[in-house]
Amino acid sequence: MGNDRDLNRTRRQLMKAALTEFAAKGFAGARTDAIARRAGVDERMIYYCFETKEGLYREVLRSKLAEEAHIVDSNEGDDFATALVKGYESCSSDPQHVRMWLWEALDTGRRKIAAEEERRALLEREKARIRRAQLSGHLTADIDEDLLLLVRIGLLVAPTTLPQVTRLVTGMDPEDPKFRRRWSKCLRAIAARIAADGSPTRHGQRKASELHEHVQ
Amino acid sequence: MGNDRDLNRTRRQLMKAALTEFAAKGFAGARTDAIARRAGVDERMIYYCFETKEGLYREVLRSKLAEEAHIVDSNEGDDFATALVKGYESCSSDPQHVRMWLWEALDTGRRKIAAEEERRALLEREKARIRRAQLSGHLTADIDEDLLLLVRIGLLVAPTTLPQVTRLVTGMDPEDPKFRRRWSKCLRAIAARIAADGSPTRHGQRKASELHEHVQ
Repeated sequence: MGNDRDLNRTRRQLMKAALTEFAAKGFAGARTDAIARRAGVDERMIYYCFETKEGLYREVLRSKLAEEAHIVDSNEGDDFATALVKGYESCSSDPQHVRMWLWEALDTGRRKIAAEEERRALLEREKARIRRAQLSGHLTADIDEDLLLLVRIGLLVAPTTLPQVTRLVTGMDPEDPKFRRRWSKCLRAIAARIAADGSPTRHGQRKASELHEHVQ
Repeated sequence: MGNDRDLNRTRRQLMKAALTEFAAKGFAGARTDAIARRAGVDERMIYYCFETKEGLYREVLRSKLAEEAHIVDSNEGDDFATALVKGYESCSSDPQHVRMWLWEALDTGRRKIAAEEERRALLEREKARIRRAQLSGHLTADIDEDLLLLVRIGLLVAPTTLPQVTRLVTGMDPEDPKFRRRWSKCLRAIAARIAADGSPTRHGQRKASELHEHVQ
């Protein structure tokens, strides 16, 4: 029992240190000795617990995906705009996770992405939710659900994936709470416009009042 | 004269090779000997023509920014949706440029970004154009121009910055012409919704018909 507990603690320490290292340097650039040193653990424990650097990387991603799945589950009733804003808030408070995705995007040498099944499953659940909102008339059905999901992801990651562009365009740091409030408000306004079914006569006044709030 | 022409050709060869190397490995990972080898030029010519690796990087970015400025100039009359779709088309046919920006985003060690003045100037012109469209009533004034520009950039770079997410979500490669057509059409529909001023009674039927085309 004591040993199991110790082993679990070692795993957690290694995964925490690995997230920092992978986010800073990507899979290719990350070094297992640096991860072990950061975790204060013998490097051999990485191989004992995760077999390979790849195995450690996959577990770190899986634990992030499990966190995300938990958020998705607990926000089942959210509309498109709320899911977008919450997604942005969660993404901007966890830039390390986004950085892991960016490193992957730049690492063209890797054929297969890690934890592909888990990622696909999570995204499929998001798509199914969008589809249900479309069928119930709460979300435009004029744009396919996969494209709507990609629009949502593109908007929520933008300040984190391009912090230097955010600074040049807005004069603010993407981590500045004032910028985060502005972007959340902007996303809500954008999402309300996207969600509307394009038929002003059906949604009329309610939409107009929702949209007329000035975003600054 | 002959020497000037040779020198200009050498500069062009080096800048072309450097673009490929910087896009593949980022500023920190790029090696001047690899760039020289790829260009078929003596490595010392890099220092003769550009002084430093930083100088070469800056010139590569500047030439990309000049191309972009040319596109912006030649599309002066475009509305928000057309600018978005054209921006996406230009970005997806030049993923190397986008990759340079992504490497920068991940390279948190660098304090100052290269060619900052040129970038800021280009983005300021884009913002001024958005502002003019807002003042003339062709674009919603409910969302500030800097945020609208960031929305546009976020949407147009999304498939290029997150190709693995694009594949997982849509089952298509972001470079697949069929995906590119779908995304262009989606962006046009999204932009038309964003551009509308939120008052259905003013734009009424025209907007409705524009928006009701199904994006698949």
